[in-house]
Amino acid sequence: MGSMADSLFEFFHSQMILYFEETFGEEQIQYNMEKIGYRVGFSLVEKATKEEARFKENVEIVKYICKDLWQMLFRKQADNLKTNHTGTFVIQDNRFRFLNRVSQSKQYLDRGQQYAAFTCGVVRGALTNFGMPCTVTSEVNVSPTCKFQISIQGIS
Amino acid sequence: MGSMADSLFEFFHSQMILYFEETFGEEQIQYNMEKIGYRVGFSLVEKATKEEARFKENVEIVKYICKDLWQMLFRKQADNLKTNHTGTFVIQDNRFRFLNRVSQSKQYLDRGQQYAAFTCGVVRGALTNFGMPCTVTSEVNVSPTCKFQISIQGIS
Repeated sequence: MGSMADSLFEFFHSQMILYFEETFGEEQIQYNMEKIGYRVGFSLVEKATKEEARFKENVEIVKYICKDLWQMLFRKQADNLKTNHTGTFVIQDNRFRFLNRVSQSKQYLDRGQQYAAFTCGVVRGALTNFGMPCTVTSEVNVSPTCKFQISIQGIS
Repeated sequence: MGSMADSLFEFFHSQMILYFEETFGEEQIQYNMEKIGYRVGFSLVEKATKEEARFKENVEIVKYICKDLWQMLFRKQADNLKTNHTGTFVIQDNRFRFLNRVSQSKQYLDRGQQYAAFTCGVVRGALTNFGMPCTVTSEVNVSPTCKFQISIQGIS
């Protein structure tokens, strides 16, 4: 039943993309998916950490994202985390689940950003709730690898 | 981690309601949530049953909804199924998960239909994919009990 629960989340996610495309046009998908994701991420952290001590270091928080948040979303951990130690972190997922369904089609490269936008929003919402306002962008290279670049605000 | 995956689905669901309310106004929530649900239900059945034999009787299909579809959505089965044997079925869930968060607040009665609309759509989409076009309405009585009434089209 686990895989069906995963499918439910995936179908919900992909139907939202389709809905936004039909309702507002393709150029609005990314904005809206990111917006919904932000709120989901913010709420998830609120619930997940309400009885835990807060983290002190930014790197601890980003590790929580790679490990625990990824586990909640995708039932696996992110594959790699890099930082330049000046407020930029890059999370890499070598088999990003939301790209599974689009990776074989020709429209893949155009679609990658749209299928990563919700997750960008979840990460931004989670980090904001941890007191780390930031921007999160995605980079889709070789299917189905996806990188999420986090730039912490106020750190240059 | 199971309960957090449940929370993810719940937060995604409730943030969609909030999104539709803010974007289109309260009166559009039910319509839009039902629409998304319909597509999710249609897709879920497509995947879940593609290697299974199709059912022959309507009642078998509705039992599949109560048992397997409910399990996918809520990790439990529905609590009761009634039929008048003339094309109407009533599925009852005594602890409908999407009502958990709204049941304590005063706005509960107004909100019930909105929080049931996605699931109405999932049921309608699933049944339509099984070749049973229908309408599905919800009835929220005593919190957090919810009834889903299915009226099969073309059967009076």
